[in-house]
Amino acid sequence: MRSPDELRGLVEGYVDDLALTPELHGQSDAVRYALVGGKRVRGVICLATAEAAGTDVDVALPAAAALELVHAFSLVHDDLPALDNDAERRGRASVWAQYGEAVAVLAGDALLAEAFRLALSYPFPQVGRELAQATLGMIGGQYLDITGSAPDEATLHKLKTGCLFAASVGAALWVAEVPEREQAPWRAFGDELGLLFQIVDDILDGDGYVLAHGEDGARRLADEAATRARDRLRDVSADTSTLEDIVAGLATRTS
Amino acid sequence: MRSPDELRGLVEGYVDDLALTPELHGQSDAVRYALVGGKRVRGVICLATAEAAGTDVDVALPAAAALELVHAFSLVHDDLPALDNDAERRGRASVWAQYGEAVAVLAGDALLAEAFRLALSYPFPQVGRELAQATLGMIGGQYLDITGSAPDEATLHKLKTGCLFAASVGAALWVAEVPEREQAPWRAFGDELGLLFQIVDDILDGDGYVLAHGEDGARRLADEAATRARDRLRDVSADTSTLEDIVAGLATRTS
Repeated sequence: MRSPDELRGLVEGYVDDLALTPELHGQSDAVRYALVGGKRVRGVICLATAEAAGTDVDVALPAAAALELVHAFSLVHDDLPALDNDAERRGRASVWAQYGEAVAVLAGDALLAEAFRLALSYPFPQVGRELAQATLGMIGGQYLDITGSAPDEATLHKLKTGCLFAASVGAALWVAEVPEREQAPWRAFGDELGLLFQIVDDILDGDGYVLAHGEDGARRLADEAATRARDRLRDVSADTSTLEDIVAGLATRTS
Repeated sequence: MRSPDELRGLVEGYVDDLALTPELHGQSDAVRYALVGGKRVRGVICLATAEAAGTDVDVALPAAAALELVHAFSLVHDDLPALDNDAERRGRASVWAQYGEAVAVLAGDALLAEAFRLALSYPFPQVGRELAQATLGMIGGQYLDITGSAPDEATLHKLKTGCLFAASVGAALWVAEVPEREQAPWRAFGDELGLLFQIVDDILDGDGYVLAHGEDGARRLADEAATRARDRLRDVSADTSTLEDIVAGLATRTS
């Protein structure tokens, strides 16, 4: 089993070397710019799940990259002036601040379409279906967020963050050809992972779960999610050591 | 063979009744708004091609709708203030003018993701691949357009319009399970159809090909494209009468 850091290096290398569709012409500059940086958490989860499920990680790289592209798509559009109006991202100008709003809209669109192109490089449609479902959930979550119409915090986070974490596990299961009837514990693990990520995010930012439950309360909820994630892995008959390392890393991360 | 008008009615009914992903929550209002109106040319071409290639049109309806959703996605984002800044579309407020820019960005995103969801309802990935390729070409074309960096008019139009017409034929071929080695004449037909549509569009708007070739010159180019489209259909051993009607309709349309 490769370590999370080794897997991160693989995702990073694949995304860096990714051949974009030539028909994008000059639009590809902003697409590449949007793909620089980030922790590649979703891609790493995808590769680790695929390896735990018995597949060579190389086979899962297009799916892992597709998840990173969907994540990048959502950041590029969320940063737009009409949405979150963030001129900075990962310590440098966000895409719209660097290339203008028009090119940023198109860059997000291109990232999403390239993500599907990658997901559909497999001879079956299921990886693409995971991506479509997750993307629609993220869009719904962002709508609830910007309109302040979320029924509750849990629904909002499940959509905005949880969907793509779930898809990171789900896509890997299809790549590894895990039969649908055996996918439930893996998927339950993916759900807990998304929740864990979100709670720790809120602890680091001092918002969301911290505002609702206090810092100690949020930490307790994070620990419970981590415990449930580990429990779900025990329901799987596979070497899930790297996935356990990912749980530990997400629970204790400081950035 | 059903007439183009019958096929249009089928596309219209399917799009009207389309069940959107529930996770979109309130975002679905703007998505539905964006789907009202239009001639459904791409969906009709898809159904007519599928029927000519020997498949029941019902089987092709998800693909036809997916093409219409990609078209709608492109209009919603192109209309944004940062791009073409069109406050009106089909005689009423464009999506951003009606719902605000943020919801319009998300509506375009949702249309694209729903399009892939539909395209991936088939048990094979090829319909989705056609969509991804066409979408990337359209984005590249829009980039060339807004930055004024197109090498020539033909390249621009092939990307902005031609790609999705080609995909309308291409998607139908996969739905109808036409073997790849037999697809060439059909695809050549699709290319001519896209060109024909674009030239007639320019004749109706008095721009593009009319500015470059005069009105008579543009009309001659349109007639030549229509002739080539019909010639390509003759290379296909199938009842292509409805596709011939579509060629005639596109060549003589007045709106």
